[in-house]
Amino acid sequence: MSKHIDITELALRDAHQSLLATRMALEDMVPACADIDAAGYWSVECWGGATFDACIRFLNEDPWERLRTFRRLMPNSRLQMLLRGQNLLGYRHYEDSVVDRFVDKAAENGMDVFRVFDALNDLRNVAQAVRAVRRNGKHAQGTLCYTVSPLHTVQGYVDMARGLLDLGCDSLCIKDMAALLRPQAAYDVVKAIKDACGQQVRIHVHTHATTGVTLVSLMKAIEAGADCVDTAISSLSLGPGHNPTESLVEMLQGTGFTTSVSKPHLHRIKDHFAAVRPRYAEFMSNITGVETDIFDSQIPGGMISNMESQLKQQKASDRLKEVLEEVPRVRADAGYPPLVTPSSQIVGTQAVFNVMMGRYKAMTGEFADLMLGYYGATLGERTPEVVAQAEAQARKPPITERPADLLKPEWQALRQAALALPGCDGSDEDVLTQAMFPQVAPKFFAKRDAGPKNLGQAPEAATPAAAASPPAVGGAEPLRSAIVYDVTLGGRTRRVTVTPAA
Amino acid sequence: MSKHIDITELALRDAHQSLLATRMALEDMVPACADIDAAGYWSVECWGGATFDACIRFLNEDPWERLRTFRRLMPNSRLQMLLRGQNLLGYRHYEDSVVDRFVDKAAENGMDVFRVFDALNDLRNVAQAVRAVRRNGKHAQGTLCYTVSPLHTVQGYVDMARGLLDLGCDSLCIKDMAALLRPQAAYDVVKAIKDACGQQVRIHVHTHATTGVTLVSLMKAIEAGADCVDTAISSLSLGPGHNPTESLVEMLQGTGFTTSVSKPHLHRIKDHFAAVRPRYAEFMSNITGVETDIFDSQIPGGMISNMESQLKQQKASDRLKEVLEEVPRVRADAGYPPLVTPSSQIVGTQAVFNVMMGRYKAMTGEFADLMLGYYGATLGERTPEVVAQAEAQARKPPITERPADLLKPEWQALRQAALALPGCDGSDEDVLTQAMFPQVAPKFFAKRDAGPKNLGQAPEAATPAAAASPPAVGGAEPLRSAIVYDVTLGGRTRRVTVTPAA
Repeated sequence: MSKHIDITELALRDAHQSLLATRMALEDMVPACADIDAAGYWSVECWGGATFDACIRFLNEDPWERLRTFRRLMPNSRLQMLLRGQNLLGYRHYEDSVVDRFVDKAAENGMDVFRVFDALNDLRNVAQAVRAVRRNGKHAQGTLCYTVSPLHTVQGYVDMARGLLDLGCDSLCIKDMAALLRPQAAYDVVKAIKDACGQQVRIHVHTHATTGVTLVSLMKAIEAGADCVDTAISSLSLGPGHNPTESLVEMLQGTGFTTSVSKPHLHRIKDHFAAVRPRYAEFMSNITGVETDIFDSQIPGGMISNMESQLKQQKASDRLKEVLEEVPRVRADAGYPPLVTPSSQIVGTQAVFNVMMGRYKAMTGEFADLMLGYYGATLGERTPEVVAQAEAQARKPPITERPADLLKPEWQALRQAALALPGCDGSDEDVLTQAMFPQVAPKFFAKRDAGPKNLGQAPEAATPAAAASPPAVGGAEPLRSAIVYDVTLGGRTRRVTVTPAA
Repeated sequence: MSKHIDITELALRDAHQSLLATRMALEDMVPACADIDAAGYWSVECWGGATFDACIRFLNEDPWERLRTFRRLMPNSRLQMLLRGQNLLGYRHYEDSVVDRFVDKAAENGMDVFRVFDALNDLRNVAQAVRAVRRNGKHAQGTLCYTVSPLHTVQGYVDMARGLLDLGCDSLCIKDMAALLRPQAAYDVVKAIKDACGQQVRIHVHTHATTGVTLVSLMKAIEAGADCVDTAISSLSLGPGHNPTESLVEMLQGTGFTTSVSKPHLHRIKDHFAAVRPRYAEFMSNITGVETDIFDSQIPGGMISNMESQLKQQKASDRLKEVLEEVPRVRADAGYPPLVTPSSQIVGTQAVFNVMMGRYKAMTGEFADLMLGYYGATLGERTPEVVAQAEAQARKPPITERPADLLKPEWQALRQAALALPGCDGSDEDVLTQAMFPQVAPKFFAKRDAGPKNLGQAPEAATPAAAASPPAVGGAEPLRSAIVYDVTLGGRTRRVTVTPAA
């Protein structure tokens, strides 16, 4: 018996998002595209919320142009994106016609595979996007956000899988954004879905490497019938990123499971990003190696660093332990949402508020919305007392309907707002950019003509230590220009201008 | 069904040997010993050739005293060492009575488990050490050095396992020093040995993490019946080191395989070494992440850097590719030895000689010895023409007997040589130290009274970058004290002393 296992390469999206704070410039990816296109991957993930955001916020780069460039340079590949369902790539729910326009435009610009997820696993929040993908004749992949709680069961994931297939999804993805998917669970979930929904249902598995166990989880998922796994080329892998593509290939040798990626191409892709990565040292994650505490705390690494910086701003760094203990309580009150953007930020910030000001004495608007159903439904019941407090503080009622059903048609208003901005080119793409990132897009449009920036630096300049220090005034090269000092000369001290001796 | 899986912790020996060039000082291990002793490991590896060597060469520390300290601080643990069979901890064969004395003294000073291996997998080179361990009532673990070649088969490892058990070994170890043990091979070898030799035969599995696949290999080895696996606490794991202990524990949850190490203890051990590790940044391996090229080249990472530095000395760095292609040929000529100390160095150096001077035009003495049987027997036949060349160049005949059978009793001579050295305390331990490291021991004895050195540094001073740069004169804090400058004041330039304005 022999089965072919497909691979999705993450280098161009989630890998540098997880390892280099999403800062990689397009020009540092372009030289690898021909090899990626020829390597034999099932798909190439290359677009998503954070890469779109980073393009316009940090890189002065048009994300739509990035997509068109990928399309041109990788004509033989399935291009894949991560889409936050009704949130698109933004942080609020959009009305259905905006969802339709976004998917139309993404497809038109070259996207093939849409991995659609909702942070609460609420199927109603992915339905419209899935329909739009299908209407465009593209591949709709329905996503189960994997998490662990007293309420999350294998049967629950099977039920959700059925629901996604009923929506018309072409395949399913088990998305393990926090590296919590242990080997036995991977096996159990994949096997149960295949047994219940049919062996022909395509299952993809996305894991992060943070806890060190998930390459084993991919092996067990494959043994249970998974068809495609996500990996990143070794030079952009591990830590809070993903398992290395080359290791996945080697792992399967002799097992009866085969891959068909080309080693010489992998080697060149690896060498390319090995040379690029040190240039982004300034943005590198502090996490190297593995971190298994996540299994006990259920709190992903990125969420902890967010909470740490919030506490620091409040001069309360010593209260982190209380906050870490508060998070599971807040999550339980909220009905056990998976912790992934944006639910991780919402739960984490409320936990900080609870510790600093007393439990639920003050709620963020987002947490109140979560408690009142404005992000959708959660698996567990929300604690009624906290819902009541949210209702009182936010002065709006709890809802049970699909959040986007409350929205009125908004395309024309979004279009007018965008077209009024200097530098907006009037395209639907620009309208969508403005709709999803209303704070950032206007600045981007205004300076777009200046062209993309590359934030990479020569490796010696890009060390984390250099980034952590203030700008180099009086630093490593302190005396190149004149500086004012107190100088004692002939017994008298006077303030003078000094330049270094030649 | 449920089976308990034992764990050997590598932090105190192979982990810092692989990651920090064996430089960790005893005083940086001592604070972790109580937690290690209480964590519930099957054994604690803490002694071997490289740690012994580093103690007397770099740390001015008596390795026997280190062993006694471990014994005192970890009274509840099995202490484990790696022993190179008839080579003991040195680089030549010793006569049997020296082997006996070494094992007696190691046992007397507190060693419990002796993992005995031979670089060529020649059983005759481990037999005397195994007998000595048994005579002392200690645990003798017979080792199969795992490698890959056209001649190495599952059946071959089974035959070797039988041979080791016939010698009286209490358990077996599959030692994967180069991270070449893929998951399916791990399963096949363990299962075949259990099937052939009995399920009651204890099998330990030692892998490195270099290629990124070996945690999966440990999973498959456990499924096939392995009883104990080697791991290192996460803060001293990965890269050319080993799989993280905590990840192994988490990996098994829900599988029916259980472990009994204590998470709170693991956490404290992790935190301790996380704080210690940055102090040794200067000695850290360049390899981070994974390296799967080894599967194709069969050449372990450490061996490549050795060959690189040899070529550099000859101003021939551009010929590395030729050397890498020559290594497999030399290994085949030598009968496919596993590549592990010392065979890796012997084969690698000869490959460099072949490229620089023509194939076998000049042989190292060690390579000639290898070809002539003076290190023992290899699995494959050695190329007769090369054996003839070795005979001609070394002017001695090939042998087929056990190399140590050629040696005359040597204890008295070794004892006299040691006792003549200033600072030798006359103990059998000192005689053994001198016997194994005749170049280094005399200097160590002479300065032993000065006490141990700690080569760790404050992290900011110990970064590789800082180590590479000159000392920080005029660096980050250039202006705390007075400096001389040319100052222009009132139109005249004068040389003055300057201090920064308050």
